[in-house]
Amino acid sequence: MHQQPATARRVTIVDVARQAGVSTTAVSKVLRDAYGTSPHMRSRVRAAVDELGYRPSAAARALRGRTWTLGVMLPDVRNPFFADILDGVGEHLDDTEYQLFMTSGCNDATSEARVTEAMIDRSMDGLILIAPVSPPAHLDRLARTVPTVVIGRHSHSPRFDTVNDDDFTGAGLMVAHLAGLGHHRIAHIEHHETDRIRLAEMPNALRADGYRHAMHQHGLGEHIDIASTTYTRDGGYHGARILLDRKNPPTAIFAGADVVALGVLDALTEAGLSVPGDVSVAGYDNITLAGFRAISLTSVDQAGHRIGSTAARLLLERITDHTRPAAQVKLSPTAVVRGTTGPPR
Amino acid sequence: MHQQPATARRVTIVDVARQAGVSTTAVSKVLRDAYGTSPHMRSRVRAAVDELGYRPSAAARALRGRTWTLGVMLPDVRNPFFADILDGVGEHLDDTEYQLFMTSGCNDATSEARVTEAMIDRSMDGLILIAPVSPPAHLDRLARTVPTVVIGRHSHSPRFDTVNDDDFTGAGLMVAHLAGLGHHRIAHIEHHETDRIRLAEMPNALRADGYRHAMHQHGLGEHIDIASTTYTRDGGYHGARILLDRKNPPTAIFAGADVVALGVLDALTEAGLSVPGDVSVAGYDNITLAGFRAISLTSVDQAGHRIGSTAARLLLERITDHTRPAAQVKLSPTAVVRGTTGPPR
Repeated sequence: MHQQPATARRVTIVDVARQAGVSTTAVSKVLRDAYGTSPHMRSRVRAAVDELGYRPSAAARALRGRTWTLGVMLPDVRNPFFADILDGVGEHLDDTEYQLFMTSGCNDATSEARVTEAMIDRSMDGLILIAPVSPPAHLDRLARTVPTVVIGRHSHSPRFDTVNDDDFTGAGLMVAHLAGLGHHRIAHIEHHETDRIRLAEMPNALRADGYRHAMHQHGLGEHIDIASTTYTRDGGYHGARILLDRKNPPTAIFAGADVVALGVLDALTEAGLSVPGDVSVAGYDNITLAGFRAISLTSVDQAGHRIGSTAARLLLERITDHTRPAAQVKLSPTAVVRGTTGPPR
Repeated sequence: MHQQPATARRVTIVDVARQAGVSTTAVSKVLRDAYGTSPHMRSRVRAAVDELGYRPSAAARALRGRTWTLGVMLPDVRNPFFADILDGVGEHLDDTEYQLFMTSGCNDATSEARVTEAMIDRSMDGLILIAPVSPPAHLDRLARTVPTVVIGRHSHSPRFDTVNDDDFTGAGLMVAHLAGLGHHRIAHIEHHETDRIRLAEMPNALRADGYRHAMHQHGLGEHIDIASTTYTRDGGYHGARILLDRKNPPTAIFAGADVVALGVLDALTEAGLSVPGDVSVAGYDNITLAGFRAISLTSVDQAGHRIGSTAARLLLERITDHTRPAAQVKLSPTAVVRGTTGPPR
C-alpha cells in the first residue's frame, strides 16, 4: 500500500532514507544505479520507494542527463490539421519512454521566443517546431542548444532537420484541377506575409507562389487574383467577401488551407450562392472534416500523419547523434477531389 | 553579441564563471540573489551571462522552488471543445509568468497515470485535468502531491477544486426544447460507461441521466432510447445507424457532444434524410463549428472559455495557498437553437 503523508508535501529522498534506515547518499546511489551498493541495500531502498510512493524528481535527473521529454510548438490549437501531425508524432513515440508536451507559439515571433526558451529551461531533450515564424538566426541558436526538427518551413540550416510538404507543387495541382474543369477566374486566399525571409520559407507563401506560377502555366496569368488575409476561418470568410465584391468575381476560390475554405463556404452560404453551382471551393491540408459529407471539400492532401511520424523519427535520430548532417525531407502532395468543385456555369 | 559555442553543447555555469573570472559558487550566488555578492561581482557575472547567452536551467531552479510551469491534460486533441477551454486558461495566464504545457491522457486510466506522473516528474507547479477517467484515489494522490484543478468531473474531494457545467440540467434543457417542438421519439447517443464511479461523476453519464430524467418529466418515459457508443465523430455515425435501424426510428437525435452530432449529420446525409425535415439533430458543447452556416447545429452552450479561465484562476489561488478549502464551481448551461432542429413531420 502507498502510505502518503497527509499533507501536500512531496515525498523526498530524505523520507526514503529514513524509511529504509540508510543514508541519503546510499539512496541516491541506488536510484542512479551507481557502483558500491549491496543487494541488501538495494532491496531496502526499493521497498522504501514503493511504500512511500517516492518518485525521483525529473529536475534532479535532468541535472544528470535526459529528461525523456519532447516539446512540440504549434502555431495554434484550433487548426485541426495539427491534430493529424500530432497523431503521427505520437504514434512514432508510442513504443518509447518519451513524453510529449505541446505548447502554442501563437504565430508570433515574440511569443515563440518565450515558448522555446521555456522548453529549453525545462530541459526538454528535443523540440519539434510546427510552422515557426521566428527569424532563421533564432531557429539556428535553438538548434545549437537542443536537437530540433522543424515542420512546415522551407529552411536549409545545417543545424536542424526539416519536414515539409511540397507546397509549391501542391498549389499547382489544385490550379490544374480547377483549370481542367474549365475555370478561368480562379482566385486564391493567402495568409498575409511581408517579411522577406518568411516569403521565401513559409508554406503559405510557397502555396501563393505555386498558385501564381500555375496560373501563368495554364495561360490564366491575367486572371490572377489574391485576397490576402489569414489562415483562419475568419480569414476565409473575409477573403471570400473581398473576392465576391470584385467587378468580375471568381468562379472558383482556392483557399490556402482547409480552415480558410470553411470560412469561404460560410460566406458563400450567407450570400445565398451554391457550391459548386455558383462558385467552386477548394482547400489545402485535407483535414478529416474535409471528408465530412455535409462539407465534402476538395483539398490537397499533404499527409499530416506521415509528416508527424517522419519528424519524430528524425528527432530521435538527432538526439542520439546530434552531429549527423541535417536532413531535408519533402513529401509529395496529392489532390483529393470531392463535392465542392465542379465546372463553371 | 551572443557568442555561442559552435557545438550543440549547452552553456553551463562553469562557462559563465570562467568568462567572468569568478568561482562557480559566486555565479550561483548572483543567479539566486543570495547574500554576500558585491555589486562588482554581480555586474561581471551578469555581463558574462549576457555574452554567453546563458540560461539558468529550470531543472536547477526547480530544486529550489517554482518552475512556473502548469500542465493541462486533455482527453484527446481532436474534440474542438477543448480548444475553447484552453483559450480560457491561456487568457487568464497571459499576464503571468506561467508557461502552459499540454498533453493527452488518451481517455484511458493507464495512460493518464503515465502522463500525470510525467507532469509531476517535470516539477510542474500545478495541473489542470480535463475529464480525467482515473479512479478518485489516483486523483486524490495527485492532488496531495501538486495543486490540481479538475474540469469535467463531478467529484467532491477536499483535495482539489472542480469546475463543471451542470450537465444534468443541460441535457434537460435540450429535451425540453425538442419536446416543445412536438417530438416524442427523442433518442440520445451516450458515451458508453460501465464503471460505477464514472457513472456517478463523468459529464457524459450525467447528460444521459439528465436525458432520462427529462424524458420522464415530459411524459415521454416510454420513448427513452439510448445508443451507447463514444464521444467521437465515429461514435455519432454508428449511433445514428443503430437508431435509424430501429423499428420505430426517432424523429429527433440528441447527441451527448457536438463532435458526436457531426457524425450523426454524416450518417443522415448518407442515408438521404433531410435535417430537420426528416430528423432533428442536437448536440452539446456549442463548439465554434456549430455556428458554421453549413452546419448550424442546435446545441447546449457550456461556456468552455469561462470554464477554462475559472480553472486557471482557482489553480493559481491553490498554488499560493494549497491549504484553502476545495472549491466546487458549477456553471449554468444554456440551449442555443439553430437550424438542425424543427417540428417533426
